[in-house]
Amino acid sequence: MVEMVREDIKPILSPKSIAVIGASRRSGAVGNRIVKNILESGFKGPIYPINPKADKIHGLKCYPSVLKVEGDVDLAVVAVPARIVPEVVEEAGVKGVKGLIVISAGFREIGEEGAKLEKEVLTLCRKYGMRMVGPNCLGVINTSVPMNTTFASSQPIPGSIAFLSQSGALCTAVIDWAPKEGLGFSVIVSLGNSADLNVVDFIEALKEDENTRVIACYIEGISEGDRFVKAVGEVSRKKPVVILKAGLTSMGIRAVSSHTGSMAGSAVAYSTVFKRMGVIQVDSVEDLFNYARAFASQPIPEGRGLAILTNAGGPGIVATDSCEKSGLRLAWLSQETIEKLRAILPEQASVINPVDVLGDASAERYKQALQILLDDPGVNSVIVILTPQAVTQPVETAKAILEVYRSNPKKPILAVFMGGKAVAEAVKILRDNGIPVYEFPEEAVKTVEGMVRYAEYLREPLEQEIPEFERDMDTVRRIIERARLEGRTVLLGPEARLVMKAYGLKVPESGFAQNIRQALAIANKIGYPVALKVVSPHILHKTDVGGIVLNIRSDYELEEAYDSIMRNVAALMPQARIYGVEVQEMVSRGKEVIIGMHRDMQFGPLIMFGLGGIYVNLIKDVSFRLAPIGRKEAYDMITETKAYTLLRGFRGEPPSDIDSVVDTLVRVSRLALDFKEIADLDINPLIVYEKGKNSLALDVKITLSFI
Amino acid sequence: MVEMVREDIKPILSPKSIAVIGASRRSGAVGNRIVKNILESGFKGPIYPINPKADKIHGLKCYPSVLKVEGDVDLAVVAVPARIVPEVVEEAGVKGVKGLIVISAGFREIGEEGAKLEKEVLTLCRKYGMRMVGPNCLGVINTSVPMNTTFASSQPIPGSIAFLSQSGALCTAVIDWAPKEGLGFSVIVSLGNSADLNVVDFIEALKEDENTRVIACYIEGISEGDRFVKAVGEVSRKKPVVILKAGLTSMGIRAVSSHTGSMAGSAVAYSTVFKRMGVIQVDSVEDLFNYARAFASQPIPEGRGLAILTNAGGPGIVATDSCEKSGLRLAWLSQETIEKLRAILPEQASVINPVDVLGDASAERYKQALQILLDDPGVNSVIVILTPQAVTQPVETAKAILEVYRSNPKKPILAVFMGGKAVAEAVKILRDNGIPVYEFPEEAVKTVEGMVRYAEYLREPLEQEIPEFERDMDTVRRIIERARLEGRTVLLGPEARLVMKAYGLKVPESGFAQNIRQALAIANKIGYPVALKVVSPHILHKTDVGGIVLNIRSDYELEEAYDSIMRNVAALMPQARIYGVEVQEMVSRGKEVIIGMHRDMQFGPLIMFGLGGIYVNLIKDVSFRLAPIGRKEAYDMITETKAYTLLRGFRGEPPSDIDSVVDTLVRVSRLALDFKEIADLDINPLIVYEKGKNSLALDVKITLSFI
Repeated sequence: MVEMVREDIKPILSPKSIAVIGASRRSGAVGNRIVKNILESGFKGPIYPINPKADKIHGLKCYPSVLKVEGDVDLAVVAVPARIVPEVVEEAGVKGVKGLIVISAGFREIGEEGAKLEKEVLTLCRKYGMRMVGPNCLGVINTSVPMNTTFASSQPIPGSIAFLSQSGALCTAVIDWAPKEGLGFSVIVSLGNSADLNVVDFIEALKEDENTRVIACYIEGISEGDRFVKAVGEVSRKKPVVILKAGLTSMGIRAVSSHTGSMAGSAVAYSTVFKRMGVIQVDSVEDLFNYARAFASQPIPEGRGLAILTNAGGPGIVATDSCEKSGLRLAWLSQETIEKLRAILPEQASVINPVDVLGDASAERYKQALQILLDDPGVNSVIVILTPQAVTQPVETAKAILEVYRSNPKKPILAVFMGGKAVAEAVKILRDNGIPVYEFPEEAVKTVEGMVRYAEYLREPLEQEIPEFERDMDTVRRIIERARLEGRTVLLGPEARLVMKAYGLKVPESGFAQNIRQALAIANKIGYPVALKVVSPHILHKTDVGGIVLNIRSDYELEEAYDSIMRNVAALMPQARIYGVEVQEMVSRGKEVIIGMHRDMQFGPLIMFGLGGIYVNLIKDVSFRLAPIGRKEAYDMITETKAYTLLRGFRGEPPSDIDSVVDTLVRVSRLALDFKEIADLDINPLIVYEKGKNSLALDVKITLSFI
Repeated sequence: MVEMVREDIKPILSPKSIAVIGASRRSGAVGNRIVKNILESGFKGPIYPINPKADKIHGLKCYPSVLKVEGDVDLAVVAVPARIVPEVVEEAGVKGVKGLIVISAGFREIGEEGAKLEKEVLTLCRKYGMRMVGPNCLGVINTSVPMNTTFASSQPIPGSIAFLSQSGALCTAVIDWAPKEGLGFSVIVSLGNSADLNVVDFIEALKEDENTRVIACYIEGISEGDRFVKAVGEVSRKKPVVILKAGLTSMGIRAVSSHTGSMAGSAVAYSTVFKRMGVIQVDSVEDLFNYARAFASQPIPEGRGLAILTNAGGPGIVATDSCEKSGLRLAWLSQETIEKLRAILPEQASVINPVDVLGDASAERYKQALQILLDDPGVNSVIVILTPQAVTQPVETAKAILEVYRSNPKKPILAVFMGGKAVAEAVKILRDNGIPVYEFPEEAVKTVEGMVRYAEYLREPLEQEIPEFERDMDTVRRIIERARLEGRTVLLGPEARLVMKAYGLKVPESGFAQNIRQALAIANKIGYPVALKVVSPHILHKTDVGGIVLNIRSDYELEEAYDSIMRNVAALMPQARIYGVEVQEMVSRGKEVIIGMHRDMQFGPLIMFGLGGIYVNLIKDVSFRLAPIGRKEAYDMITETKAYTLLRGFRGEPPSDIDSVVDTLVRVSRLALDFKEIADLDINPLIVYEKGKNSLALDVKITLSFI
């Protein structure tokens, strides 16, 4: 039985009675197959085929309309031509049906006309308080009810994987493919067009489903970013959510002028959000089910210590290589473990990780070695590799592994039984009893890495502390208002710096001048050397148009620089409106990093950190987080990049003021939350001085959203 | 029949008669299984079991010793205990046996004693002119002879993949696994300890084997780097060689002091050599056979244009994502193709790549669309994806694909039939007829990428032109001799610069001074500003110890700088022997790149190029080539790095003198060939000026090998 917080989805995932509107007598027809599948799945409640032209379908009494059904109808599965769908949905509403699965295609996916029809159906759902899956989907399966409302040609094996898919074809392929792989499912939902219920609803609904141990999703896009963030974050604390996000470029990339924006594409936004929500992201269908297979039955590892047990050197080396590639490390075995292994293994065996029990290993030898490894507190998971050699006992070894597994249920064990006929029975025994088996070592290692990542997410505190600090929001509001009044979406340099100051960040001393006389006055007030920069809403990359002169040491040089900038800009960007110039103190050198913010349409503000300066777009050494971020997250962002090596003190240089970078990140995150009008922000470079000497936001670009 | 250049290997790969020394009557014994496998393989020549205690084995007459066999013995398979091996090998030699396969274990792999035994056996082979596979191996299979001398428990299907493996266990696993995957083999060689014949010999021997279309190798190491380079380069011109190199860290990393050395680990050396030799390197067992499967039957694509044909959107998107990840691009279909597709496909179908023929696609629709795609000159290969939906015709579609394939044999077609039971027959039909089938789109796309890479290698000219130029080898020789006489392995800065000059490279003007007076004289000759650098054989990273002062503008500043350097060095490296200082012209700024050379123990000099300056170890934006390199290769090296973007002229900057970088690379390559004494070389930075203005080797480090 499905235990749910989402009572509204219960009639769909766990109905008491089902009507099939568009049931058909014709074998092979979708409406025939659905009735057959519901019957074959073993559904225990009443089934009402609806077809005005038939008396009986698969031995069940037929009804001309859902309105003619005597009993209550919890769920209606709709498989009639698209144009009739509104009519039958209205009838379902009148009848008091609670859930709908609309199989029929011919809606949004075919264009404008279909979209209109889809909206019509959705309006009817709202009117009668019905929830809907689809349209344009394969149907829904729940093996614990049991119930199969799809038109797939076979029944999945019961198990503890829930599979949610935005591709119906992938559902049919997986339903057909899974039995030979011994993969079992609790729930399969083909989401179709997700006009009403979408992937977030089902992730949420499956949170408390005791038959589901892992939720595997294939998605191409998400329509409610904020709900996704909230709901999935909660679910993944309770059970792993593994997602294959397809369509790297499907969202299109909107024109962006900031560095941050140009690097924060849709794929980055998704992976940033996934990471934050504890979602295990995979990048192939194969990995999706490799991971799900392990999560479905195995415990979560308590640490990164992986031991490999093998009867062959080659596959052991392959596994070790995979560890290195995936960032895992083999566990260091304790001296005690090594001695215990040595005592039971032949002299030629390798007693350090990977542990090689040799080609003549019996089931008993595997069993003893596995138990010894599991007893080592430094070992958090074990991969057992078997190749079928002359005296290998695959079946007995499988049984031995199971025996050890049953008395050691807290550490995950994954098996790699390489081969075909020689290992087939052993593989079946293991899979039937909850040990995931892989064909190649690489798959198992990658899966353990995914499990370890999830375990680390679970260990992170649920709520991060978002530091509060004083800030001058009024000033920022006024600056934004003025820019909007003037129809500008890019803040001027001086304005951007005022915003920074209002949020407690250090900026270079400077002044705005509309002519050379004003510029000279400001320069003399700041004191030479100074820098001169053009101020124009139309010039974003000042260096590129010769709009910047540095290191000006005298009045004379200032006059020269002023003329040169005006000449360059007039020549290269004659259309640009020039407000004037900015005179700025020349700042001392430090490490250059970039901090940025890009507001993703779907998920909100993404904060970026990375190596700065002119190489930022070249090197792309950046990390992202979804705002708001706390100090710990800001620090983690820094450590993920190579810039961290630089800031820590590279090759004998003194360490930089990392604290002030953390502070800047947190403040930018706060600013992004306070002012939704800010679309993009680049601090490039943020100059970071030696430890204790703060940072300086040298160049700041702030772009506002339209409207 | 095997056609071979390697006559010496013929008795092993294609013997006329076989003796099994150590044949056994005991079922399950290795010596029993081998006789059985030879019989079951259908070997047509005489088989002589050798066992002094038996009369008959598997119905064959037994001989007490190979010497007692009446007829000639081409090949002897040895499966007796290790200590008896020398004795029976000697007998084989006396008998005139030409080839040996030593199955027995207990040699080098067990330690010193075994290594001695192995050497003894090898000496006997040399004495009698016999070639040997093993010891410690599974045996050799040649399905076209046919012959199976292994003790594996089943027979592989004949096919056109040759599999060479340094892991015997992997052979047994693959032999057991392959039939269910429909993978067929021409030859399988378990190389064992490779005491005599190694992987290079067999790659060479298979070059002309007409039954072998692809050579797939699992290797952990190569003992003859130079032979590998020569032989494999020739073979891969003729047929693809796919290699999984396991043991990323197995070689250990020797202590290195140069930047280049620290980045040119063993894994880099292998992949550099593989690339140069046209070897397709894979990083998993799965990929090894995924690639081999396609190469075994499909033609090489003539370009990068890949078309995807699918009956489902989701898998099409997954395939498109994989293209992006693997660096492939979907082909742009011609207007004509699009129109032809539109004419035959339903309105909702996608006629741009990936072409979606929709869920209700019949075999006929697939057939027409596939033919249209193959007719497009911009399409060089096609991946056909099928998911089993309501009206899908997997078997008919398979047959339709075959029909099209037979009349279009020049463009590779790969199939992805997703599912289990519903597609099983179709998959078998395709595989039996030479169309590789994959379970998931990602595998097929990755494989096409491998094929495209190979195709591009084949299009490269066989012999690159290595430019000649005048150089002063005497000077270099004298400098090296002097350093050796003084027991130094690191050249002093001035020496290193002289080497550069001798090879026609520009270095900054400078002079060596042993005291402040000499320094002042040199500085005044060069003219201020100058830089001052400590000269010591013990200080490699001068910046780290305060051994460099830049931008010295006067005699006074020079004196100060001199004192400061001496103080710093004395404080931080009191043991370092200080020869003096170098006074160097201050050079103008340009783009900083690094050029280096590291002499790999196995394969010789590796040339490196990358982004320079202090970030070199941080960013690791480098490319490698095996020397010698010509101008084209040097140019390719540059384009592979991000530094290329910088040199080309990044964000409005003028382009740099890439020609001079090419020139420097070629000259460093020449130097590495001329002087084997040079172990490592770093030019860091090479300052690259604007186009036409040359480059300058600012800082050069040259390390000599010990003796």
